[in-house]
Amino acid sequence: MKVAVLGAGSVGSALAGYYGMKNLDVRLYELPEFEKNIKLIKEQGGVYLSGSVEGFGQVGCITTDMEEAISGATVVFVTVPAYGHKKVAEECAKYLTEGQVVAINSGSVFAALEFDRIVKMEGNEKNIAIVDISNLMGCRKSSPGEVNIHGMRKEITVAAIDHEHAKFAVTKLEPLFDNVETTSGLLEIALNNNSTLMHPAPAILNAGWIETSGGNFDFYWGGISPSVGKVMEAIDSERIHIGRQLDYNCMSFLDKVNQLNEKHLGSIYEYISTNPSLGGPKIGSSVCPSNLQERYVSEDVPYGLVPYSELAKKIGIQTPHIDSLITLASRMNDIDYRQEGRNLKAMGVENKTIAEIKQLLIN
Amino acid sequence: MKVAVLGAGSVGSALAGYYGMKNLDVRLYELPEFEKNIKLIKEQGGVYLSGSVEGFGQVGCITTDMEEAISGATVVFVTVPAYGHKKVAEECAKYLTEGQVVAINSGSVFAALEFDRIVKMEGNEKNIAIVDISNLMGCRKSSPGEVNIHGMRKEITVAAIDHEHAKFAVTKLEPLFDNVETTSGLLEIALNNNSTLMHPAPAILNAGWIETSGGNFDFYWGGISPSVGKVMEAIDSERIHIGRQLDYNCMSFLDKVNQLNEKHLGSIYEYISTNPSLGGPKIGSSVCPSNLQERYVSEDVPYGLVPYSELAKKIGIQTPHIDSLITLASRMNDIDYRQEGRNLKAMGVENKTIAEIKQLLIN
Repeated sequence: MKVAVLGAGSVGSALAGYYGMKNLDVRLYELPEFEKNIKLIKEQGGVYLSGSVEGFGQVGCITTDMEEAISGATVVFVTVPAYGHKKVAEECAKYLTEGQVVAINSGSVFAALEFDRIVKMEGNEKNIAIVDISNLMGCRKSSPGEVNIHGMRKEITVAAIDHEHAKFAVTKLEPLFDNVETTSGLLEIALNNNSTLMHPAPAILNAGWIETSGGNFDFYWGGISPSVGKVMEAIDSERIHIGRQLDYNCMSFLDKVNQLNEKHLGSIYEYISTNPSLGGPKIGSSVCPSNLQERYVSEDVPYGLVPYSELAKKIGIQTPHIDSLITLASRMNDIDYRQEGRNLKAMGVENKTIAEIKQLLIN
Repeated sequence: MKVAVLGAGSVGSALAGYYGMKNLDVRLYELPEFEKNIKLIKEQGGVYLSGSVEGFGQVGCITTDMEEAISGATVVFVTVPAYGHKKVAEECAKYLTEGQVVAINSGSVFAALEFDRIVKMEGNEKNIAIVDISNLMGCRKSSPGEVNIHGMRKEITVAAIDHEHAKFAVTKLEPLFDNVETTSGLLEIALNNNSTLMHPAPAILNAGWIETSGGNFDFYWGGISPSVGKVMEAIDSERIHIGRQLDYNCMSFLDKVNQLNEKHLGSIYEYISTNPSLGGPKIGSSVCPSNLQERYVSEDVPYGLVPYSELAKKIGIQTPHIDSLITLASRMNDIDYRQEGRNLKAMGVENKTIAEIKQLLIN
């Protein structure tokens, strides 16, 4: 089985190494402008893994040539950050063929919607299963040729605009994961994206601390104080409200973690401050971005909060807390994230009715 | 000359002590619920001052009886925090008489507008000169009976709804200050209120840092990083925009400090990080609030940002950055600051036209 991995950041490199260790025919692609990401991997002929998976995974093809990477691949994983999706989609569109699965690692919201729109806009109308998949893993590059994996998800969920595509993708992804299931659609994966909840608020509401200290504090344990937690709960409520308005019943983050951990904690702050896996003063630390241009802001605002807010606006929901963070982050980084990010136009739903949007987002 | 000082916080106590040292007949009033503020001062019979003024100022009358405090006073200084203005105004209204001057120490925005409305609403239609005065001093209580004054303003500006009241107040205030002048009206004092610019943004954008550290960092030097400075510049622009729309030309904060210091700094961050009087790692520190309920949020949001935003809304100006901070602060402190603060209704201008509002704010 041939597997293409687009993007040689931490997730992409880890995935390539992992399937290399399983002796699959893996092709690892990086955009030419980021060729430095694959220099050492190319020299090594693969990726070293540590953490929850240990070993060396051989990667047969390491390339900046998209055609070479994806031709003949059963599954094409897209692991570039969300701000790279557009470029990768445009490049992909030239070579994707009937029956291929494009599985977008969902660090962002409604990625498949934008990807599908771009591929079609580029003139590729073939029957390709473009799907959002739930977050694959938590990992971090320990060196340019080695990834430390600290959380490999065992249960993967899959969503597409067309449920038949999701079902088809599951058949192709099943050999690659322990458990793969379809969901109720793109909305479910989008609204269960934790990055959008967990990253922008603590980053923006500790902007001075991050910049003055260079990120020298525990991001979750230090950054999520009672008040920051309250803003996160407000964002969570707005997210749930969006779901309800579209007839999708979304659990609150707190209910989810309480259910998972069989607890009855009363606030996100309480969850953070009592959860050892998220850091804490005595038990290590969660890594803090060293500046506000890192992806906690530059990816999770324009490709997380912006699509939430834009969808909300379209369906008549107020999202004042989400909007406040977008406004402040835009000013901090001198980028109009609503304009540059995944807005209604980028998702291709600018002129659609609410009923049409529901059809795209819920199968 | 009899002088009443309402409020025995740091500014009120300092003022009472200062005029006591000048042998004026000073009456210091505190609301009954804050009687503890005057316990030690009463025992001492006055206030100890340190810093730019050193000595002991005898205060003849220290009371929680409003009538005793203000009857016969030429000038009544209001020094309570803005959230106490309503209560003090209601209590004052019973005893204020023709020709008295009520001078509100302007740590907030459009205080005289609200005070005047309440006094009239309480049925007192006498000819009283209710004026906003520019910030009197920077000071901090070093103990319940002693105030450290670190910045005594020598030039005081005065504004009222009716310019005749401002001119009358100047004649009564002149014996008390080196230099007292009228301004173009309430708008000028309101838009030149630095607390509204300097406090809420750094507090809210360092919420986690304040709560996690208990405010253990230098508020200006540490809290105002480049990004926080950018948000402050956005707030400053919105403030200037409000002024322009009402034909009042307001200088930017940066232009003001550049002019004052004969510099050409390019940003608020640059000003903060090169200004030794605002702290810095090597030269001491500016005091940081220990939590988000302190006045940098609880006074400067509802009585600074809210009146700006409400006035802007009324005159058709967008203030997205100001509004974002109001939204986030409200959630952090579980108080709807727009509802509870100095909104259009509290200022009594809810049903006025823009022309009528201009008449109130510009003489």
